[in-house]
Amino acid sequence: MPDAVSLIHAKRDNTRSLTDAEIGWLFAAYASGDVADEQMAALLMAIYFNGLDGAELRAWTGEMIDSGERLNLTGFAAHGRPRPSVDKHSTGGVGDKVSLVLAPLVASCGAVVPMISGRGLGHTGGTLDKLESIPGWRASLGNQELTAALTSVGAVIAAAGSGLAPADRRLYALRDVTGTVESIPLIASSIMSKKIAEGTSALVLDVKTGSGAFMQDGQQALELARTMVALGVDHGVRTRALITRMDTPLGRAVGNALEVAEAIAALSGEGPEDLMEVTFALARQMLDLVGLDADPEQAVASGRALDTFRAMIKVQGGDPDAPLPQAAHRQGALPAAASGWVTRLDARAVGVAAWRLGAGRARKEDDVSHTAGVRCLAKPGDYVRQGEYVLELHADDPARFGPALEAVEGALAIGGEPPPRASLIVDQVGA
Amino acid sequence: MPDAVSLIHAKRDNTRSLTDAEIGWLFAAYASGDVADEQMAALLMAIYFNGLDGAELRAWTGEMIDSGERLNLTGFAAHGRPRPSVDKHSTGGVGDKVSLVLAPLVASCGAVVPMISGRGLGHTGGTLDKLESIPGWRASLGNQELTAALTSVGAVIAAAGSGLAPADRRLYALRDVTGTVESIPLIASSIMSKKIAEGTSALVLDVKTGSGAFMQDGQQALELARTMVALGVDHGVRTRALITRMDTPLGRAVGNALEVAEAIAALSGEGPEDLMEVTFALARQMLDLVGLDADPEQAVASGRALDTFRAMIKVQGGDPDAPLPQAAHRQGALPAAASGWVTRLDARAVGVAAWRLGAGRARKEDDVSHTAGVRCLAKPGDYVRQGEYVLELHADDPARFGPALEAVEGALAIGGEPPPRASLIVDQVGA
Repeated sequence: MPDAVSLIHAKRDNTRSLTDAEIGWLFAAYASGDVADEQMAALLMAIYFNGLDGAELRAWTGEMIDSGERLNLTGFAAHGRPRPSVDKHSTGGVGDKVSLVLAPLVASCGAVVPMISGRGLGHTGGTLDKLESIPGWRASLGNQELTAALTSVGAVIAAAGSGLAPADRRLYALRDVTGTVESIPLIASSIMSKKIAEGTSALVLDVKTGSGAFMQDGQQALELARTMVALGVDHGVRTRALITRMDTPLGRAVGNALEVAEAIAALSGEGPEDLMEVTFALARQMLDLVGLDADPEQAVASGRALDTFRAMIKVQGGDPDAPLPQAAHRQGALPAAASGWVTRLDARAVGVAAWRLGAGRARKEDDVSHTAGVRCLAKPGDYVRQGEYVLELHADDPARFGPALEAVEGALAIGGEPPPRASLIVDQVGA
Repeated sequence: MPDAVSLIHAKRDNTRSLTDAEIGWLFAAYASGDVADEQMAALLMAIYFNGLDGAELRAWTGEMIDSGERLNLTGFAAHGRPRPSVDKHSTGGVGDKVSLVLAPLVASCGAVVPMISGRGLGHTGGTLDKLESIPGWRASLGNQELTAALTSVGAVIAAAGSGLAPADRRLYALRDVTGTVESIPLIASSIMSKKIAEGTSALVLDVKTGSGAFMQDGQQALELARTMVALGVDHGVRTRALITRMDTPLGRAVGNALEVAEAIAALSGEGPEDLMEVTFALARQMLDLVGLDADPEQAVASGRALDTFRAMIKVQGGDPDAPLPQAAHRQGALPAAASGWVTRLDARAVGVAAWRLGAGRARKEDDVSHTAGVRCLAKPGDYVRQGEYVLELHADDPARFGPALEAVEGALAIGGEPPPRASLIVDQVGA
């Protein structure tokens, strides 16, 4: 019979792979209390150093999926045509409100989009936190409500129910306090176990790279993408990944209500160019994966995407016509030292500033401010005059401005000519 | 203020050294419960991979010492001459009953020897387990009893009281279940914190290397020795180490009462050559460290060492004249396949056999058999005739013989000429 210490030794010393049976025993024993948190923590740190090979990771992710229920998202139809399910997951970036635009957009093209999302921790915001700035909107849906919403609207953005991959929830909480979050196989299994359990038939991953991304290094982002795509395919989910740049905020708004407003503008055909580039690229991948021949740009232009967004908000209790809350205080920041073109506006610095203004949380139990955040008045490629503010800070409490200003020190560069334009889509993984 | 995750990250990523203040905070927070076992386990695994530098290890060991009391072992005298304190610690080997001979021997030469010892776990036996095979003898002594025994007898072998380095006891239990025992800085801090807290003024370390040793690799043994010597010197304890070979059992007896009998024989001038070589080498180092000009061979020959042993046993409730218990069953093992010289008798295999016969414990809470063990009828360098047994197994339960026989399969080699003789002392560390 396996025991925890011999499994830890095998991984610590990299002497051999853990077998499927051992990984199965481990999860059962962890659930029953026979393997203690301190033993799992030591194993997670050994995995941080020595990784998991393909077979180990497949078994590990399978145990996380099997720790809970797996939803069945087949059988949706509208106007006599089947509606295949497809989802998107982003590893998180600054100003990344793509989900808010993409879910209704792809649903309006004929798919169902069961987007199980999370909350923000640290300098990147969470999709649920953003939507909660809409008066009345609630993130929690039971499985029947989820199915009903997908039937009537075609898209849903909701919190994971407690039945989905409960082992992941416990492991993630343990990794969070034991300094073992930043491990590619552990990240991949955490993301993919929830997405696979959610029951989507296809999945597109947006793996961010650059200063504002969780994986700043391009090679690591590519490795994470390949690992997740392989896991999806192994478990019968058609999966692709795009690697996208996250060096500067996506769009001009960073912060919860500010990003909702920008998402609504995007659905109304007035979205910033970079946000639309990423959104349409992901939408085309999603539609292609499920064999839907639809034009996402047309879905926006026709107003169908916005209609679906409004219906999606309403079905979860939100009022799409209610005015969004606004911050009590605003302050200009980052005045241009000289006239010229913005060549750099650092995503991470802006993300940390928004976080310090109140848009994010330092600990899971913290509340977030709906209204706090940063507006980018100029972005790379824009021309600014000397003395013009590049950022506008929003906060409920003016005492927040000082720490936010510190965060953006050195985040701006201005040059004598416009920076070269480059696609935000740097790579694609998956067939 | 430090937090556990940032300390774990610093050690995991090897980005910087932990400061004295951080290590101080860590131990205080671990004691108060603000740092949880799972966080300490993750940090221990990160230390397994990335080590502790000299300053970190000094601070770490200092916190373990300061977690409890530090005894004061000065002021002993006999016949108007001061009796300096000196101790020995062995990293553990098969048949290693040196402590039983050495403590009374060195005490009989004019020192006081406050030998705080441990119990066995795995294939090497514990000194306290051996002595407990003497009828009436008890391992636990209060601090006043310890001082009284040192005053009257000069030597004591006893269990560590709960007041000595309690942080080490808690950390060792955590390392035991989390697969983080085999780390040189953690081993060094565990051993040295107890020895320094015990209050000895000088210390000689017997660091074993070879198949029967905890550190099988010679370079690792040397690194452990250097690390421990540096820690002792840092904390004001004159410390030296000998690296000694542990490829074959030390002496001919392996098992608790069997080893006590051999130790008494050694104190009576009838000890096996290899046991006496190591014992006298350690005794000379101990006496030299505290400036005592005495001849340990003479102390044995005169009977003074045996007298001190008898007094030491009596003062802890033991009866040195009571017959030692004997096993109910004996069985020959490892018949020589051919006549010739024994060239190899593997220490680890014999240790595992003794353990399976009942001499050792698999878990800390197990009992050990006083009588089980192995006698080596022939050792490397001895001539044997074809068919002669090389081992004699002792057990209370004959069902134990089968697993023990399996353990020694392949442990014996016989050659056409005697193996070369080499000193068991392979290196020395410390001034």
